[in-house]
Amino acid sequence: MNSRYLPDHIETPCVVIDVDIVDRNIRRAQDYLDEHGVMSRPHIKTHKLPKFAHRQIEAGAIGITCQKIGEAEVMADAGIGDILITYNIVGTAKLQRLRRLAQTCRLTVVADSEQVVRGLSETFATAAVELSVLVECDTGQQRCGVQTSEQAAHLATFIDAAPGLLFDGFMTYPPKKSHERVNQFLQRAVELCESNKLEVNTVSNGGTPDMQNSHLVSCATEHRSGTYIYNDRSLVESGDCKLADCALAVHATVVSRPTDDRMIIDAGSKVLTSDPMGLTGFGHVVEYPKAAIRELHEEHGIVDLSNCVGTLPNIGDIVQIIPNHACVVSNLFDRVFLRHGDGRIEIQDVACRGQVW
Amino acid sequence: MNSRYLPDHIETPCVVIDVDIVDRNIRRAQDYLDEHGVMSRPHIKTHKLPKFAHRQIEAGAIGITCQKIGEAEVMADAGIGDILITYNIVGTAKLQRLRRLAQTCRLTVVADSEQVVRGLSETFATAAVELSVLVECDTGQQRCGVQTSEQAAHLATFIDAAPGLLFDGFMTYPPKKSHERVNQFLQRAVELCESNKLEVNTVSNGGTPDMQNSHLVSCATEHRSGTYIYNDRSLVESGDCKLADCALAVHATVVSRPTDDRMIIDAGSKVLTSDPMGLTGFGHVVEYPKAAIRELHEEHGIVDLSNCVGTLPNIGDIVQIIPNHACVVSNLFDRVFLRHGDGRIEIQDVACRGQVW
Repeated sequence: MNSRYLPDHIETPCVVIDVDIVDRNIRRAQDYLDEHGVMSRPHIKTHKLPKFAHRQIEAGAIGITCQKIGEAEVMADAGIGDILITYNIVGTAKLQRLRRLAQTCRLTVVADSEQVVRGLSETFATAAVELSVLVECDTGQQRCGVQTSEQAAHLATFIDAAPGLLFDGFMTYPPKKSHERVNQFLQRAVELCESNKLEVNTVSNGGTPDMQNSHLVSCATEHRSGTYIYNDRSLVESGDCKLADCALAVHATVVSRPTDDRMIIDAGSKVLTSDPMGLTGFGHVVEYPKAAIRELHEEHGIVDLSNCVGTLPNIGDIVQIIPNHACVVSNLFDRVFLRHGDGRIEIQDVACRGQVW
Repeated sequence: MNSRYLPDHIETPCVVIDVDIVDRNIRRAQDYLDEHGVMSRPHIKTHKLPKFAHRQIEAGAIGITCQKIGEAEVMADAGIGDILITYNIVGTAKLQRLRRLAQTCRLTVVADSEQVVRGLSETFATAAVELSVLVECDTGQQRCGVQTSEQAAHLATFIDAAPGLLFDGFMTYPPKKSHERVNQFLQRAVELCESNKLEVNTVSNGGTPDMQNSHLVSCATEHRSGTYIYNDRSLVESGDCKLADCALAVHATVVSRPTDDRMIIDAGSKVLTSDPMGLTGFGHVVEYPKAAIRELHEEHGIVDLSNCVGTLPNIGDIVQIIPNHACVVSNLFDRVFLRHGDGRIEIQDVACRGQVW
């Protein structure tokens, strides 16, 4: 990546995304999943751009994953035909929006309790289309999800009997490095269903970290990954990608050099976020790899240059930052800049940004 | 604060602001500054709402503080007449916007280096109005700012001689609990200027933490504070306010109860942010004060209920969260809900949100 392609009229702080790297990242993940016979259903929470969702589908994905109804509404409106919302949908207003959304695309949601299933069923019992539902399984992440294979199979039967709903299978967001346990949990749930003559069409696994070993969850039929399209510092540090695979960079201006070993950049926590992702510091400075972004105030990044050698940055210089976590950064910007291979810069509204509802 | 005032059609996660508490917080700070003869120039980075900026001025503030030109443009457009931007303005595009902005309000900026001053001077030498400039002083925060009183006075003289600029005084964002050192730094800079026959009109101090002792910086003529209007968990924990002084709460829905001691709410790091502010956990749950928001994923808040006694939350319940840091939360929402004393809910666009440039 090279900031010489950033025209003068584009002000910092801004997000610049290298489209060639995006394409490479999409291709690599799709090839891996193709090789193992697993379908791809990328999570759009990372990019929030219909343009990239279409690109993922053109590369071979069967559909997309969203976390919010608002994201799914934007994506369906942009012509995406197959959407999984991996979130318990709770509350009258949201359920009504879900019912409307189901008329515009092939829609699947998840549930991890009878209460959530009852809300879905009451909403879809009188709807024109049935709603597909996956049972969310907690395979160790300790987030949402039923706790055992037996509970998963029990809830599957409950969904199967619920008016307006169609039981479609299981979904998990797995903890890292736990393929064997995840597979056992899901495999057992599938077997329990099959012994009840309940068909399981989908077993949906997810995550970008350690994705290259996700085929070890051998009962999975599809994989959801989000961050892989951009990658970030956390994935470089975990060995899941190289710096050259990072498509998203924050461009920031050096606004102060108060001391020889300190620079201040115009990217703080309202740009890079305070998400540590288990790392020290808040991003990798491409031009000064030994620099440490040691502290963020809201609009100031405080950078320690004491380990840098050679020419140091001057006030007015633009530096590129690979953030710790790409997904939360693109969530802060109303628009991002796509840089194409020929140097052309394209502005994209982050259409799903702010779709918190 | 009570969630019974939230109408059904308002979906979670959302930000609800209690206007009575806002008014009390504004009044208390203004009374304190009036008592000590210090002028008030609130920082709007916390609320980003023209409505509240006007309310702060009606209560007695002489003007406002912004961190970004974009924020100042929105506020000037909304009729705010006196704006200080406490940020080094660097780069051709921003300087041209600053020149246009100076035609619409009384505008002051800061600078901490000759390079920054030169950029301002080149821009304003041919402008219809002079630009007021304060020298930013690093009194221990280790962010921007000149390092000594002597450097401050030297830069003051440089500004005074620069075409198009008017030296107006000094500005600092002080570290906590360091009033004596801050006052010494600024007082010495003022004296050096006065011995050079250079008039110092403004000494601008800032910050909400420990604001009730800021009169100890006795040479300050004005005070900038932002967070005081909403307050937050960090200020409760530091003893600067009480929970009843917190005007901003995130309303979130319980979407899962996977185990007896865990609930999942629909407010994650894309709502509460990962900003720890030196605390453990990511917010205070009003209805369950012993609950611990132990981990945030992007759209999930993972809450440990093991220390709670009595009735525990159910799926579908709405809880109110006082976030660690109010300023970064309102930055994530396109609109917030103001709750008036009579229960009326008013929707406000967060007009300065996304004004990162």
